[in-house]
This record gives sequence, structure tokens and C-alpha cells, in this order.
Amino acid sequence: MVDMPTVITPRLPRGMRDILPQKMLQRQYVIGAIEQVFQRFGFEPLQTPALELRETLMGKYGEDAEKLIYDARHREGKEELSLRYDLTVPLTRVVAMYPELVKPFKRYHIAPVWRAERPQKGRYREFYQCDADIVGSPSMLADAEIVTMIYTVLRELGFQAFVTKINNRKILTGIGQYAGVPNEMLGGLYRSMDKLEKIGIEGVREEMIRNAIPAPVVDKMIALVSLPPDNLGELRKQLGDIPIALEGLNELEQLATFLSEAGVPRAHYQFDFTMVRGLAYYTGPIYETVVTEPKIGSLTGGGRYDELVGLFSKHSLPTTGTSFGIERIIDVMDELALYPASIGKTVTQVLVTVFNRDLVGVSIRITNLLRAAGIRTELALDVEGLGKQLKYAAAKAIPFTVIIGPDENAAQQATLRDMTSGEQSLVAQHELAEMLKSKLRERGGGS
Amino acid sequence: MVDMPTVITPRLPRGMRDILPQKMLQRQYVIGAIEQVFQRFGFEPLQTPALELRETLMGKYGEDAEKLIYDARHREGKEELSLRYDLTVPLTRVVAMYPELVKPFKRYHIAPVWRAERPQKGRYREFYQCDADIVGSPSMLADAEIVTMIYTVLRELGFQAFVTKINNRKILTGIGQYAGVPNEMLGGLYRSMDKLEKIGIEGVREEMIRNAIPAPVVDKMIALVSLPPDNLGELRKQLGDIPIALEGLNELEQLATFLSEAGVPRAHYQFDFTMVRGLAYYTGPIYETVVTEPKIGSLTGGGRYDELVGLFSKHSLPTTGTSFGIERIIDVMDELALYPASIGKTVTQVLVTVFNRDLVGVSIRITNLLRAAGIRTELALDVEGLGKQLKYAAAKAIPFTVIIGPDENAAQQATLRDMTSGEQSLVAQHELAEMLKSKLRERGGGS
Repeated sequence: MVDMPTVITPRLPRGMRDILPQKMLQRQYVIGAIEQVFQRFGFEPLQTPALELRETLMGKYGEDAEKLIYDARHREGKEELSLRYDLTVPLTRVVAMYPELVKPFKRYHIAPVWRAERPQKGRYREFYQCDADIVGSPSMLADAEIVTMIYTVLRELGFQAFVTKINNRKILTGIGQYAGVPNEMLGGLYRSMDKLEKIGIEGVREEMIRNAIPAPVVDKMIALVSLPPDNLGELRKQLGDIPIALEGLNELEQLATFLSEAGVPRAHYQFDFTMVRGLAYYTGPIYETVVTEPKIGSLTGGGRYDELVGLFSKHSLPTTGTSFGIERIIDVMDELALYPASIGKTVTQVLVTVFNRDLVGVSIRITNLLRAAGIRTELALDVEGLGKQLKYAAAKAIPFTVIIGPDENAAQQATLRDMTSGEQSLVAQHELAEMLKSKLRERGGGS
Repeated sequence: MVDMPTVITPRLPRGMRDILPQKMLQRQYVIGAIEQVFQRFGFEPLQTPALELRETLMGKYGEDAEKLIYDARHREGKEELSLRYDLTVPLTRVVAMYPELVKPFKRYHIAPVWRAERPQKGRYREFYQCDADIVGSPSMLADAEIVTMIYTVLRELGFQAFVTKINNRKILTGIGQYAGVPNEMLGGLYRSMDKLEKIGIEGVREEMIRNAIPAPVVDKMIALVSLPPDNLGELRKQLGDIPIALEGLNELEQLATFLSEAGVPRAHYQFDFTMVRGLAYYTGPIYETVVTEPKIGSLTGGGRYDELVGLFSKHSLPTTGTSFGIERIIDVMDELALYPASIGKTVTQVLVTVFNRDLVGVSIRITNLLRAAGIRTELALDVEGLGKQLKYAAAKAIPFTVIIGPDENAAQQATLRDMTSGEQSLVAQHELAEMLKSKLRERGGGS
């Protein structure tokens, strides 16, 4: 018998992935830009553990979703634990647990969640969610803040053609009442309407009729949601007798006024009475942002959910917020070439080579000097062979290298090499940092 | 029977915690500062999934540690999954899985790990680790980079009195050989020596003798490790016949030369032949940083482990790196008051109040203006009652508020109120952003 080494083939669990440095730099850029806007709007970071008690998560998402939840356990553990499925239920748990939190409580949370979905291209079982919510304000000002923030985030990331569709669950409910749909069938109606983009208005109509809603009711409803969405007057006339519909229309108009005061351009939001959002828990305005050119699906989704906190506490708290589809945003920005030139293949801006063993000291000192000037600097760790060191810089796409041979060093100089053009220049060692900084600024990769 | 509401008491799993906004701001400051230094040294971010295959983790940490690992599973899952126990084994898996990664591969990783330890004050079952490692270089230059980076990070965080203790496993092994300890007993020796701080040199001696090491051997060894650590000459004389000891001494001397070239002050590192580090996998230099005043234990720990990658791949890769005890650093900085004044209780720098319903518009526009100037601004969402809005600002410790009443607005002005001093001034609306920025700079809380 041969003595086999106990080497394990390194593998990842199904549906999981590593994010290697180059992709990580893009992620950090997106997350950093979003966080900066969140904070500028006065949202504060919150962190909750990945593991929650199973009972905290169960009964919140519906059976289909809950099948996808991971359970966890340790050898001596007695608690039933699960990995969080989203960041919304942890938020409501936090709000219920710490009543001392000053309201309105504006928090953001950017963190992984786990769902055992069927793995497919671009969809993983561990992925980041990015949520911002305002807990404790019933005002449409809060909703306006959310929509304004969505606009600001997407503009700062460089998106051009996008629109936030706005609807209100109260209007949908009102339209259902007006057409004669019993309240207990509204959930099914929403689900059918939600498929509009996929199956078209005729498809929605057929599905509703298949679900035993009388054809005249369906037609009456479809006529209403198909009204030109910017003509609220006509909708108001038709729904004048339905209090909940009027409430929704008033909210919508107030929201629009606030958005216009906030300077959100009219091209970037629109009413859409066919927009539903899947989740059951919304109670007021709902919003969803799509990129219109190219058509790449939705980038954000959210709305007002005034009852969810009530699942953990005796009183409900009016809450509104949005999720940014951060994994999609990261991918789409690559396709649309929205990353600035400074987000390169590597974080490193310059490699200081080591000419030979005798000159290690000067290379260390120059490395120090450049870092002290804020330049992201690597020191070559493999002393043998300048050629090998330059190959390393090329393989990593490091834009500049510094070479200090015996002659250069005797003259207190260094050679600065642009790895893209191959251009070299002799620079006084004490001027190297400034020279390099100006070259980095030129190529848009400054620190 | 009373119809009970289905309200669940919100609870956290044992040993878990939420991190509320104020603490999160401190965390973000520390993590941001550390990341900036990592990147300045050319380390790049890596992200791996929280869930690994169980077989990836098992057999790496020893039985005591592996008892603490959480297992995970979903309803239809066939794989045996576990939550990662540290960031080192995931690194070695990544290095083995992607041989195309250019070497030396310098990565950092700041992320949670899970260990079902007995919960106690300041110790949680989910906590962040913060690692930086260099994979693929056997050079002492790599070790010098790590120690220099530790020095730079701690200085930039504001630590003053700290020292990185340096030893080399080869010297420890050499001392063991010199004293006549068989190789298979070295592990036990290390473990005893590791308790020096706790049980004193006499305690270590007794424990070694209890472990059946002959007293003369123990005494010979203790005499050697107790030599003045900066006198390498005497150690070199005594260990002159032990090749592995000489190798270790040479490495140590080279490392010291590089550190001095890198400008790390002599006060911030020292040799310590009694320092062992718990983990079995170290093979060369080891380092551990302690704060000397006040005595608060170690802030970093690390060293060279050239064989670990070999567990996943047929060839080993020389690797060196360090962990920053980031959870301890975050807590200790609070005790030592090392957070800058700009890391306050809230991210928000100013609250724009809403005087009444008619004046919502101008408050929205001023909010916009301040945010566009980069000031972190909240808009009061509760329109009723200026007093309530000011109370909110006070409760959240927001340093400034803006009030725009009808008179101020008619004159295109606004009242800027310093919430600490109560001082108020009337400012032209178009000058408000600049005025506020200069006031924020004054109090060291500028954006």
C-alpha cells in the first residue's frame, strides 16, 4: 500500500463563492459610495448577528421562503438557531428589544444573508443585502427622504437612465374594492398584477379570471390601473367614494410635492398603478427603481410597512425603507463601465524593487517614504532578480515601479518606470513621492 | 380562553449581540483606519463565504477548538457545512483553489467568525477577526513588512506605549534540542512556556517537571530563555552547534536589521525567547504586541507558518502574517479615550427642523443644500412641534440645528443653533453651508 498524504481537495459548498481582490475593490467602492450617501442623509449603521433564534425568523416570510433558511447548531447547544434570511426581520427584532432607541430611528445595514436557493449564474446562497429604513415616522416626508436618497445614490454611482416607480398599496386596495374584489382575494390579485412585466396585461387578465374573479370585475380593475399614471385627477374622480383609495392618492400627491421640493428630477420617478412589489407586509407607498436603458431589471425595491414591528412588540411602529440590490448593482456597473479609472485591478500604485542584497536598505527606506506620503506601495519581497520583480508588477497590473541601482543610489536618485508606456525617468529620491503623486493624478488613479 | 396575540418576545441567541449605531461608528473608524494602512502596504481585500464544508475546517485546529464549531444545514441540503472558525484556514483553501493568484499574494480579511465559547464579559460567539498575510515569500523582508505594518496601524490609531515581542520557533526548537528535550515533547514545552505571564517562571518550571521532563533539562532551558534578549551573542555562543537554532538566530538578526531600516523605533519591538504563541502551526518568526501601559493584554498575534497551505495542496507555500485583535482594540480605545472628537454619538451633524406645514418646502430645500455641501444632515420628519424636534436633536446629541420660521424665511435667512452652548445666530440661507462647515471644523467634527 502507498502511504497517501492527507491532502483534502479544496472545495466550496454549493452556491457559495469567494470574492477575489479585484472584484473586492469594486465591491468596496460601491459599498463605500452608498454608505457615504446614507450617512449624509443621517442614517446610522447597525450590525446584528448572522445567527438568530429560529423562532425569530419563522412565520415572517411565508412557507416557500422559509424552506430556504439554514439552520445552525453547535455540539453542546440547546437553542434552535438559523442564519438570517434578510435584514428586515432582524431590524424589527432590534427595535422591539431596545425601546430606548430614539425615534425616528434611521438605520442602514449592509451585510450578508443566507438562502439555499437553486444556484444559478449570478445568484448565490450567501449574498449581501443593503437596507436603509426609517422606523417611527408615519410622515410622507420619510418616504420622500427614501426616494430622494435612492436618486442620490444612483446618480453618485454614475447611473443615468433610471426611474423609481411609485405606487401605494392603499390605492391598489381601493381599486380592488371599487371593482368589487373581496378583501381576502386581494393578495392573489397583487400576485397576478406583479407578473405584468413578465406575462403582459392579457396574461394578468387571464390569470385573474382563472383565479375565479368575474371578468367584469377584472376588466373594471384593469381599466383603472391602466389610466395614464400622471393624471391623478381621473383616478380621484372614479375612486371618490372609496376612503382608502383617497388616502392613498393624497399620500401619493404629498410625496410628489416633497420630491419636487427636494429637486428630484421628474424624469427619475413616475407613478405606476400596476407596480405591486411581492412582499405581503407593505401598507402604504411602495417604490421600485429600474434602469430604463439598457433594460436590466430593478436596482432597488421598498416601501412602507407599518405593521411588521408589531410582530415582536405590542405596538406597531410606522416604518418605511428600501433595499438596494447591491450584488446586481456591482455586476451591472461593470457591464456599464461605471467604475472610475482609479478602481483598477490592484490596490497597489507602485512597486519598489530591490536591486540586490546590498541595496535592500535603500528600497525599504524609499518604500517608507512613499507610504508616508499616502501612496499605496509594495516592496518587492523576492530579492533575487529584478526581471522577476518587474514581471510580478506586470502580472498584478501595478502601474509604476521604482528601481534603485548602485549608480542611482550613489547619486541619491531613483528610476521611476511607467509600466504601461514603459517610459522611465530619473528622479531625485526626495522628490519621488511628489513626482509619483502627480503622475497618479494624471492617470486618474491618485490616492 | 383568552385569544393571545402571536407576539414573540424578541431575544438573541446566547453569546450573541447587536451592535447599535454609536458603537458601530467606533467600529467603522477602527476598521477604516486599519484598512487604509493595509492598502497603503499593498494588501488587498479578500472575502470568503461564512459557510465552509465541514471537512475543510476539521483537523486543523485541534479537538478542543473543533468542539466549538457551529454546523449548518438547510432542509434539502446534502453537504455537511460549518461556520468558519477563523480566517486562516479559508485563506489556505483559497490559495490552494486558485493557483493562478500571483505570488506573493498579500491579502487582508476583516470579517466575523463563529465559536461557541462560554459567553463572558467582552467575549462573544460571533466576533470579527482582522488578518493580514503574505503568501509565497520565504524572505524575512515579508516578516519585517508585517511587523512594520503592526507598528504603523497602532500608531495611527493613537496607541503610545506598546511593544511587539518577537521570537522564532526555530530558536525554541534549538533550545529544546540543546537542553536535551526530545522533539515529540516540544509541543508540551511550548504550551507550558506559553503560561509564563500567568504562572511565572517557577510555575513553568514545576509544570515541565510534572510533565516528566528531567529537572536538569528544564533548568538548562530556562537559563537560556532567560538570557537578556538583546544579547544575541551569548545565545549564539551557547547554541553554536545546533543548526536550527543558528538559522533562527540569523532570521531574527535579519529581521531586526530590516525593522531598523524601516524606521520602526527600537522601543516598539523586542526579542523575547519566552514568547511562544499558542498555535501549533508556526514554523519561524512569531510576534505578539502588548500595550505596556496600562497592561491590557495583547493586541496582535502572528507569525510564519510555512506548512499550512500544504494541507490543501501538494506543495507548501511559505506564509507569514498577523491578526489584529480588533474587538479588543475597539474596546480598549474607548477606555484609553483614543477616538477623535469627530466620532461622536451620532453620524448626523445637523438637524433641519420644520417650523410648520407651510414651511416644509424651504426646510427640504435647505436640507438638500447642506447635503450637497457634504454635511451629514437630517430633516425633521415630525412636522408637529418645534420643541419636539429640538428634543429629538438633544436626545441624539446632534450638535447643530437649523430653524427657519416665517420671518427668517421672508428675509432668506435661517437660525443656526449650537445645541451644546445654546448659542444662536441668524445666517443668510445661501451662506448656511459654509458657516456650518467652519463651525464643525472648530469643534473637530468636520466632514
